Amino acid sequence: MDLLELCKKAKEAKQQIGALSTRQKNEALLAAAELLMAQQDKLIDANRLDLEQGKKNQMPEGLLDRLMLNGDRIAQMAEGLRQIARLDDPVGEVLSMKRRPNGLMIGKKRVPLGVIGIIYESRPNVTADAFGLCHKTGNVVILRGGKDAIHSNQAIVSCLKDALKGQGLPTEAVSFLTDSSHETAREFMHMNGYVDVLIPRGGAGLIRTVVENATVPVIETGTGNCHVFVDESADFDMAADIIFNAKTQRIGVCNACESVLVHEKIAGRFLPLLFQRLSEKKVEIRADEEARRALPESDFVVSATEEDWGTEYLDYKVSVKTVPDIAAAVAHINRYNTGHSEAIVTKDYANAEKFLNEVDAAAVYVNASTRFTDGFEFGFGAEIGISTQKLHARGPMGLEALTSTKYIIYGNGQIRR
Amino acid sequence: MDLLELCKKAKEAKQQIGALSTRQKNEALLAAAELLMAQQDKLIDANRLDLEQGKKNQMPEGLLDRLMLNGDRIAQMAEGLRQIARLDDPVGEVLSMKRRPNGLMIGKKRVPLGVIGIIYESRPNVTADAFGLCHKTGNVVILRGGKDAIHSNQAIVSCLKDALKGQGLPTEAVSFLTDSSHETAREFMHMNGYVDVLIPRGGAGLIRTVVENATVPVIETGTGNCHVFVDESADFDMAADIIFNAKTQRIGVCNACESVLVHEKIAGRFLPLLFQRLSEKKVEIRADEEARRALPESDFVVSATEEDWGTEYLDYKVSVKTVPDIAAAVAHINRYNTGHSEAIVTKDYANAEKFLNEVDAAAVYVNASTRFTDGFEFGFGAEIGISTQKLHARGPMGLEALTSTKYIIYGNGQIRR
Repeated sequence: MDLLELCKKAKEAKQQIGALSTRQKNEALLAAAELLMAQQDKLIDANRLDLEQGKKNQMPEGLLDRLMLNGDRIAQMAEGLRQIARLDDPVGEVLSMKRRPNGLMIGKKRVPLGVIGIIYESRPNVTADAFGLCHKTGNVVILRGGKDAIHSNQAIVSCLKDALKGQGLPTEAVSFLTDSSHETAREFMHMNGYVDVLIPRGGAGLIRTVVENATVPVIETGTGNCHVFVDESADFDMAADIIFNAKTQRIGVCNACESVLVHEKIAGRFLPLLFQRLSEKKVEIRADEEARRALPESDFVVSATEEDWGTEYLDYKVSVKTVPDIAAAVAHINRYNTGHSEAIVTKDYANAEKFLNEVDAAAVYVNASTRFTDGFEFGFGAEIGISTQKLHARGPMGLEALTSTKYIIYGNGQIRR
Repeated sequence: MDLLELCKKAKEAKQQIGALSTRQKNEALLAAAELLMAQQDKLIDANRLDLEQGKKNQMPEGLLDRLMLNGDRIAQMAEGLRQIARLDDPVGEVLSMKRRPNGLMIGKKRVPLGVIGIIYESRPNVTADAFGLCHKTGNVVILRGGKDAIHSNQAIVSCLKDALKGQGLPTEAVSFLTDSSHETAREFMHMNGYVDVLIPRGGAGLIRTVVENATVPVIETGTGNCHVFVDESADFDMAADIIFNAKTQRIGVCNACESVLVHEKIAGRFLPLLFQRLSEKKVEIRADEEARRALPESDFVVSATEEDWGTEYLDYKVSVKTVPDIAAAVAHINRYNTGHSEAIVTKDYANAEKFLNEVDAAAVYVNASTRFTDGFEFGFGAEIGISTQKLHARGPMGLEALTSTKYIIYGNGQIRR
């Protein structure tokens, strides 16, 4: 089926999918979970083809591991769908209903977005997860996965379609672009009128490509150049704990700390302590001149360059800069950050409030690790991604981010004068 | 000043503008209103240059009238700013604050979007209006008006800047692209990292150009191919009143009715009555075959073609189609509408609910005119436009549509396990 045909069929299905009851949607999710478990041999066979191709193409070990499916991982996918079935359904909630002077009752009701396009890279678990989140919110989803995982993804989608069919639902609720060419991806990004929103999930390059090329509205999930600012009044142990956690608890994630700012009055006392903590994990420190003076001579301490302030290492590396005051810290962050997560460690009331008010980011913390920016940690029960743009959704996105609203108006013959 | 420089300065100003108190913003709005009144001779002189140029270029009378400024219109602009000053300030409201099991307090706070770009056509009053709405919500605004109104717009912006200066505020809170070339407009649409959102205000062509070319997120305000469906059980007088109002109260607007669907069982009785009403305003009816049979022979009744179902006339013209039932009406609307405003006239409970639930549009009405889709009629006190997209804002947009949110998190040393 060609792309336009597929998009048309998706659009046609959206009315029926959008009108499903919560129970119908949950039953489809549970059926899909069961079928993934029942057909795991098939999935593993399909996955083997991708793995073989990956090895032939000299795919790095780390990526091969992300690509690999086994019984445990399939069980996790299935459990993910069951968890989504247990969440509250946001669709249909009337957020407000007001009476106007002319008697019109104007309500605002939560509705599905419609047709959601997801463009993602090689991890096949995204396939089931994205379907689950979109289906729970009454959306039709069109998936465009990476070439590397094409057999795995197709096997998973075929399983999901079987589950829908078994429930008497239209299989167009989920579809998959089997043509993984860049031309088709670009065409997909221009399906205005058919696709209501595109969500890229993957690395910075993928996201940039989608943002730069799409005419369909995009929800941008982004990279995180996250800072921790250690204020003059900070509790040193708390600050070191928070930085150690934010930097090293998991290095490859967008809410990890990439840069530390230290008030110059405490740099001499705090930085040796921080060095001590970070050396446990052999973290390389890229320090400005003043910070270097406060740090011991070590293979793990090098001089920072301008480039470091804007770099998301996703590695055991961190930049460290001294600042004269909180205003300078805020200005530096607002210049170099990516609008993700920023933290201050302080005992000072006014500085805490200033930081919360003036730092421009999706999540701003006082005395806590940036690692909490996450749909599950925020209590949403699910996460589609973390938005670093300001439209529609900002920060961790739960199910509500996959909905829109419409105005419903009850009249009894009102006309406009 | 070149575009990049101007965008950089706007970005630099956004922290200060975003942190202004409601009182400071209101005082600037009132000062701007006063200055527009005081400098009206200057504005009218500048406007004269645009009018002369327009006449030289054979601009149609209607457009010349929209372009023209006089004492009354300047007084209206000033009054518009005063009205905005009287509205509640949405910025700073904490929409929710919850405690997580680990003790973190996670709040969601309303904040300005940052830097808003407005691309608009020749009406100079948009200049003051867009500034007023953006300033009230703590945003910096960059205006790109049409070439036709360039002298008028520059004179208004210079007035606004003087008012800001008089209040000790940075004049970068509002800026204007004096280079009205298409190249600069396109460059402006790619100012990611500087401009947070673009809002096009104008005709379908302008909006399409922005949607197709911008990489900066866009809020799409749209055209309206709005329908009124007259159900079998409709009160005929109510239906005729609503259609007459929705079609003729103002023809050039996006919430006007462009197409009428009539249940086939009542077409023979209702359509002659409708014809009677619409002939008061000499409305041309473009009817399908069955509707034609029910309508009298008249110069004002012609046969509809497929093209009519998708046409926004913005004129004394309306298409009329018969449908066998409500399902067919909903299907027709969901195929041809532009996601704006749709109405059903009915006495039937189930059909009213079905229409509200299944029609995919920003505003769906039972027994009322589509003309109410409007920020003022909805009680927002202001309107930036009517969004026909599903992301961020849908339907009439008031001040809240010019805000985003950020998460503010209060901790006492929490780290992630």
